[in-house]
Amino acid sequence: MKRKHRVRPAASGRDQRSVTLWGRHAVTAAIANANRSIEVLYCTPASEAGIRALAGAAGRPEPLVLAARDLADRVPENAVHQGLVAVARPLAQPDPMDLIDGSAQVFVVLDQITDPQNAGAVLRSAAAFGAAGLIMQDRHSPPIDGIMAKAASGALEHVPVVLVTNLARTLDRMKRHGVWCIGLSGSAAAAFTDLGFDGPVALVLGAEGPGLRRLTQDRCDAMVRLPTNARFPTLNISNAAAIALYEFRRQTAPCTA
Amino acid sequence: MKRKHRVRPAASGRDQRSVTLWGRHAVTAAIANANRSIEVLYCTPASEAGIRALAGAAGRPEPLVLAARDLADRVPENAVHQGLVAVARPLAQPDPMDLIDGSAQVFVVLDQITDPQNAGAVLRSAAAFGAAGLIMQDRHSPPIDGIMAKAASGALEHVPVVLVTNLARTLDRMKRHGVWCIGLSGSAAAAFTDLGFDGPVALVLGAEGPGLRRLTQDRCDAMVRLPTNARFPTLNISNAAAIALYEFRRQTAPCTA
Repeated sequence: MKRKHRVRPAASGRDQRSVTLWGRHAVTAAIANANRSIEVLYCTPASEAGIRALAGAAGRPEPLVLAARDLADRVPENAVHQGLVAVARPLAQPDPMDLIDGSAQVFVVLDQITDPQNAGAVLRSAAAFGAAGLIMQDRHSPPIDGIMAKAASGALEHVPVVLVTNLARTLDRMKRHGVWCIGLSGSAAAAFTDLGFDGPVALVLGAEGPGLRRLTQDRCDAMVRLPTNARFPTLNISNAAAIALYEFRRQTAPCTA
Repeated sequence: MKRKHRVRPAASGRDQRSVTLWGRHAVTAAIANANRSIEVLYCTPASEAGIRALAGAAGRPEPLVLAARDLADRVPENAVHQGLVAVARPLAQPDPMDLIDGSAQVFVVLDQITDPQNAGAVLRSAAAFGAAGLIMQDRHSPPIDGIMAKAASGALEHVPVVLVTNLARTLDRMKRHGVWCIGLSGSAAAAFTDLGFDGPVALVLGAEGPGLRRLTQDRCDAMVRLPTNARFPTLNISNAAAIALYEFRRQTAPCTA
């Protein structure tokens, strides 16, 4: 009887609870993001002046100043908070189809990437090359929390991250909306460098080793491989994503350089 | 008097002492590298069969089988050894000029990158795109040890890593040997995408934030920037290196895909 009434906090970061962000880039980007609601800002005395000015200019709550060791208690062990912590609301998750505007957009789709460092690093490159969204399945993906935000170095505030229930079905819907779905695989026969990009594209990447699931591959319009050395063919996921995003940008908007 | 006679082990991994390597990719690549001398191999019972076959085929010492907790004592705390550890001799360091063969080679030069994870990740992409060498200054660079080897995922056995005393002087020498030195910087005016590659190139990258030192920049034939988004321009060092290596390979040997 007792157990039945016990209330446990949800274990996942995917519900609508607050998220804790830390680190200079992650927190200052959150402050600057008008779509991000911030509940509390904490800082150390050393970072107070800068963050107070930033928070004030953006109409954010006044930062609460804590000793570094007290600030460390508000983040996971060994988290590099750099004197800045924010307790914020999760960002709204749009329907991926609402992100499609018919222009030469690029989306990144991650299949079974569970490491938040990897997902965060991909998100950072996605922001650097102006990607329109990062799409993952809600199962077997990392929580959209402070760890991913720190690895993304502020990019979480720039690129919508969308969790979907069924990745294959989402790819089907995107294709119906005119998005060309390109799967990357070290074992594909076709060359990535032979692709010509001119419309909306989804770059679909899987985990190192297992790669894309069969169901995901089947939804891709093409499976291609990057031009790596046959003797040492593997790239880490964030490097593969960065290269693919670069190539899309190079072909569609080279003048942004 | 006593202090004078005390013999301390060298603190740096840069002398000729043995290095400890760990992790599946780093150790199996070392076993397969004929230029790598291996003194001792350790494994857990679970990884014994595979490593014994590999070691035997390569004429390596028989692996010593240890319990996982005893193996963990032979590597730094929290190192992910995956049941494999090797005690090996450092690889020989060639003169960078001896690596230049007049063909369309690509070298990566890192200026003041001190994080072994970053350097290892760059090394991995360098191997994937068949780079001819990774060059760093001996000061302000990470030790070429197990941490870098693990991050490089075996690439340390594929790409020569050379530490030089003076990076600016090395770039001068490389230029005299016909190598075109290209510095990457987020604040450069020229576009990376406007470069045409056909001969040997050194891609020169600095740390995030400070970037290339002035003396290093001055030695570069061109300073260019990748075509990133003006609102979120920064890439991490390993992603920037991967993109630059990809572009070189795309232009010079696209058919390796």
